[in-house]
Amino acid sequence: MIILMKRNATEGQIDHVTAWVESVGYHTHLSRGVERTIIGAIGDDRGKTQLKSAEYLPGVEKIVPILKPYKLASREFREENTQIRVGEAVVGGPKFVVMAGPCTVESEEQLLESAYIARKGGADILRGGAFKPRTSPYSFQGMEKEGLKLLKKVRERTGLPVVTEVMSPADVDLVEEYSDILQVGARNVQNFALLKKVGKARKPVLLKRGMMTTIEELLMSAEYILAEGNEEVILCERGIRTFETATRNTLDISAVPVLKELTHLPVIVDPSHASGHAKYVIPLCRAAVAVGADGVIVEMHPEPEKAVCDGPQSLRPESFYELMEEIRRLSSFMNNGMGVRS
Amino acid sequence: MIILMKRNATEGQIDHVTAWVESVGYHTHLSRGVERTIIGAIGDDRGKTQLKSAEYLPGVEKIVPILKPYKLASREFREENTQIRVGEAVVGGPKFVVMAGPCTVESEEQLLESAYIARKGGADILRGGAFKPRTSPYSFQGMEKEGLKLLKKVRERTGLPVVTEVMSPADVDLVEEYSDILQVGARNVQNFALLKKVGKARKPVLLKRGMMTTIEELLMSAEYILAEGNEEVILCERGIRTFETATRNTLDISAVPVLKELTHLPVIVDPSHASGHAKYVIPLCRAAVAVGADGVIVEMHPEPEKAVCDGPQSLRPESFYELMEEIRRLSSFMNNGMGVRS
Amino acid sequence: MIILMKRNATEGQIDHVTAWVESVGYHTHLSRGVERTIIGAIGDDRGKTQLKSAEYLPGVEKIVPILKPYKLASREFREENTQIRVGEAVVGGPKFVVMAGPCTVESEEQLLESAYIARKGGADILRGGAFKPRTSPYSFQGMEKEGLKLLKKVRERTGLPVVTEVMSPADVDLVEEYSDILQVGARNVQNFALLKKVGKARKPVLLKRGMMTTIEELLMSAEYILAEGNEEVILCERGIRTFETATRNTLDISAVPVLKELTHLPVIVDPSHASGHAKYVIPLCRAAVAVGADGVIVEMHPEPEKAVCDGPQSLRPESFYELMEEIRRLSSFMNNGMGVRS
Amino acid sequence: MIILMKRNATEGQIDHVTAWVESVGYHTHLSRGVERTIIGAIGDDRGKTQLKSAEYLPGVEKIVPILKPYKLASREFREENTQIRVGEAVVGGPKFVVMAGPCTVESEEQLLESAYIARKGGADILRGGAFKPRTSPYSFQGMEKEGLKLLKKVRERTGLPVVTEVMSPADVDLVEEYSDILQVGARNVQNFALLKKVGKARKPVLLKRGMMTTIEELLMSAEYILAEGNEEVILCERGIRTFETATRNTLDISAVPVLKELTHLPVIVDPSHASGHAKYVIPLCRAAVAVGADGVIVEMHPEPEKAVCDGPQSLRPESFYELMEEIRRLSSFMNNGMGVRS
Repeated sequence: MIILMKRNATEGQIDHVTAWVESVGYHTHLSRGVERTIIGAIGDDRGKTQLKSAEYLPGVEKIVPILKPYKLASREFREENTQIRVGEAVVGGPKFVVMAGPCTVESEEQLLESAYIARKGGADILRGGAFKPRTSPYSFQGMEKEGLKLLKKVRERTGLPVVTEVMSPADVDLVEEYSDILQVGARNVQNFALLKKVGKARKPVLLKRGMMTTIEELLMSAEYILAEGNEEVILCERGIRTFETATRNTLDISAVPVLKELTHLPVIVDPSHASGHAKYVIPLCRAAVAVGADGVIVEMHPEPEKAVCDGPQSLRPESFYELMEEIRRLSSFMNNGMGVRS
Repeated sequence: MIILMKRNATEGQIDHVTAWVESVGYHTHLSRGVERTIIGAIGDDRGKTQLKSAEYLPGVEKIVPILKPYKLASREFREENTQIRVGEAVVGGPKFVVMAGPCTVESEEQLLESAYIARKGGADILRGGAFKPRTSPYSFQGMEKEGLKLLKKVRERTGLPVVTEVMSPADVDLVEEYSDILQVGARNVQNFALLKKVGKARKPVLLKRGMMTTIEELLMSAEYILAEGNEEVILCERGIRTFETATRNTLDISAVPVLKELTHLPVIVDPSHASGHAKYVIPLCRAAVAVGADGVIVEMHPEPEKAVCDGPQSLRPESFYELMEEIRRLSSFMNNGMGVRS
Repeated sequence: MIILMKRNATEGQIDHVTAWVESVGYHTHLSRGVERTIIGAIGDDRGKTQLKSAEYLPGVEKIVPILKPYKLASREFREENTQIRVGEAVVGGPKFVVMAGPCTVESEEQLLESAYIARKGGADILRGGAFKPRTSPYSFQGMEKEGLKLLKKVRERTGLPVVTEVMSPADVDLVEEYSDILQVGARNVQNFALLKKVGKARKPVLLKRGMMTTIEELLMSAEYILAEGNEEVILCERGIRTFETATRNTLDISAVPVLKELTHLPVIVDPSHASGHAKYVIPLCRAAVAVGADGVIVEMHPEPEKAVCDGPQSLRPESFYELMEEIRRLSSFMNNGMGVRS
Repeated sequence: MIILMKRNATEGQIDHVTAWVESVGYHTHLSRGVERTIIGAIGDDRGKTQLKSAEYLPGVEKIVPILKPYKLASREFREENTQIRVGEAVVGGPKFVVMAGPCTVESEEQLLESAYIARKGGADILRGGAFKPRTSPYSFQGMEKEGLKLLKKVRERTGLPVVTEVMSPADVDLVEEYSDILQVGARNVQNFALLKKVGKARKPVLLKRGMMTTIEELLMSAEYILAEGNEEVILCERGIRTFETATRNTLDISAVPVLKELTHLPVIVDPSHASGHAKYVIPLCRAAVAVGADGVIVEMHPEPEKAVCDGPQSLRPESFYELMEEIRRLSSFMNNGMGVRS
């Protein structure tokens, strides 16, 4: 951390700040410029929070943090990409991964049909919500345990691993029992009790970026999971909230190369929630492949107009097949023709 | 909900949409304009989610919702202001309420000293965190149960009711036992499992707006609590996230009159988290009084430079006394001199 | 426009609103729902602004606009893509177009070298600023007319058409004389005096989206140019402002498919300004090709560390060549292998 | 500027960066931490732009600017508040100033009536647009020169000074001739050609913050005007663009104390454009007075439902009188009862 003194800070103030910084356990390093003096605080940044209070000391202008606040999630900690095996798929490996399925589990028929479509199209993992985070208490809240059982049944029938959301620490054990990947949704990205709990699970976690979460905060949330011992975290960019209203959220496509630089964890993209309209899902998936993401998670429904939720952003079967064909060809070209992910 | 047809929609498409809308349980009303046809869907809006899928039908341009999605929280449901008694204070009543105290409970001495300062200054309620939502897993996570016990002890000694955060459904019973108001923090504003659980508690809930939450979504989250039977919800505007970096967040002061129009629930303001700097807390509290808020919640610490967290935004005792004096005089003037809250 | 009446609106209020709407020149259409009455205002929406004042009338809850406010820019007005010929390039045609060059014209040597690199790499158009919009009055403001002369000279030597920014209506004639495309920068996207003036020019206009401009507002700004008679407008997505700080702005990649749906005008992407870091330019250009953009505009400099401005986001020559090779192969694959732009 | 080296930067890299920084005209200061080396660049920050290119040099992690980029606008440059006399009003003086009037000049009758209402209510300055920045080219663009003449006529009749917008450098002389304050609108806050031109005018400038502009950028835009010799700049907070849609923009009330700390220039608030609804104007004006602003500018119209533009946010005469009475009493209380502005 760097403490920038005011232009007119006195020697006494500089001495006082230096003494205070040392009193909270740091070494100091003084740098006197023509206009300002800068005091570097050298030491373990776990005490950083308290150091920020230096802002209070007379003569201090501002505090500038210099170290990244996450460790286990960083590329500096681990250089090679983390690869996460789920069934026969490897998230973060050379093959671009597709997770697909309905927003929510509605019935055995609907789920089974979705799974057959997913498998026929070539998806790697089936998605489907049993616990649903709904803005309104009056909206359908998911089939809960019954939904989990259906997911398991369908997995057994189709061989597709399943990813499903868990919303409460109390449900983690249950969801872990029935699914292959535990999803932490955008609204829970800073639900620290939940992060700690899935950090103790022995299944991979799909962590969605919140709609107002910075990339650094997303990595801090991943750090919560990693710090509990679960090394299998898949990050998911799913759109952030901006002033633009033409799409439901704004897909931050740049988050992919930024994350690829900062972390070894795999990064996938959710164009369905990002855009909110099925018609934009195909071009955005192409962008996700091209920008270097490890996969996508898309909403697909046998009959979107009958979907209990997120109908407008769910792909119809025929569009889904088209998408899968495009992804197959483009990702193959990216790997072989351009050597991007080789 | 209104379904706006495309300019060139055919009669067959209009018929199809009409039939579909009726098939999902609505009455329809057709309105033919010069350029476009509009189909009104009339009925209970709990099915609204599915209705949105009409976007999929051929000939449909867009769907426009027309009804507010919350009920119990609305002014239409209850016209007079909800008043919530906490100890001797009444949140939402004629007196402007002040909640004050440290970001986190650090020790008995620190908490007791804070409480004496709060009481001396004239605060109504003591705040202090026992469970702390921290962005970093390496930051101090709160004294947890020990902190709760200290809060109770200090309440008994000083007579000040306490408000403290609860972060997980599993802790609600415990926190309810030890505190007077259950706080749901900004990061948990859409932690629906937690909202449902505090909705079953018999203590008032202080619900903070998330930094990414619209006013309507905040009211939907309040609706979750109300729908479970807990009618005592205090809403708190604490800054939203924008591109501006001079302050930690951007205090949305307009949210106060907007909420006062839309809901009967009391509304308070948190200028400490909104601005992130103690030096802006006093002017922002003055703005909160003047704009018509029911109270403020501010961070105050006996020695901010030693605070374990949020030091930079915590008021020193002398600034706190100054603030309380200003609030007393300004709110009295607003009540008596301007008749604003009478 | 639709006028939504309050739940408890009286018959008298409905009559009054109806009469008022008719008095300002619209036909009305009444739709009575179970809970609310809706009044449709039918007529030319050029008077829309005044119609909004209906919000004031007793009994009115809100006003919902239903028609797009732009015309000439819309797909409804013109279905086929507008193609704009610039030298040998066709923006909006089957070939993906690359505009490249330094942020600012610094000297004849620098510009000439940049142009040779651009041409060698296979760029279609040379970019370079003569008038520079700088946040600080103390920053270099551009070589102005001398810069324009250099651009012209370099165009003559290399055959590359040039695009350069114009910042003031007074300079439009001058810039038009020396360049092939007039660029209106992000900060001037709602400089209506400038838009009107370039609308009268006989050179194509490259209109950059502002960092806080919605897609609809961008189209309205294009409409200003089109309405003056200049049909050659190229739209450019260059990043919007959000809370994320890892990149300079947030590239709104979804704006490409959204614009492609709404308008016939060509759409290009500026990944240099969007991300602010050269290291992200290559992956973002790949995304731009894959998502269906018509081209990109990138900053490139013979020696970025000596650049007078925007050094950090400028590509070095060797990275630029790599980018061009990637674009060539990927766009060829998109056209031929996937049939996307055929 | 501080250059932060990567953890694993070599001695050779450190030497290279040091040499480079010195080659572009700075002194350097080396600070070696346990984990990282920091190189301070000491010198005139006008070359800052180029210095940023150090990001390119091998071994560099990031660049941290430390000095404020504006000078003349800063409190450090001038400690006492700038007071600007306009007619009998002093903006930035002890009396809270009110500017009021219609969005646009529509006719002599409308303007004269507005002026009488403004004067009767006790406003200090009449506002009214002759050149109107409209999102749509099809909206009324203002009465232009005829409007300016009417403003002058009405000023002569009522004695009220007038503020009106200027949108193009070419119109500055004309507007200067007819008005008392030149307004630069939110959309032109970074129209640098216009800023330079009003910087040469001999009338005060009312500079509105853009909806996308940070506080620092606003001060940089003010710096453009000051640097040209015009010392009379009034800053205006008028709402920024966020994801919230309940109000037209989000009034950044904290900008007032932040600006008061950073600059000596007067700061006023525009609650009409910020909120977009007349019903929120009164509470937001109270907040503006209480937070310490120097004044407000509000839209008022004799008959808002007939207004050519911005009807929904214009106060009716009776609400305006109520507002003026509230402001008079509250600002008097703030001055005398609380000593805030004394």
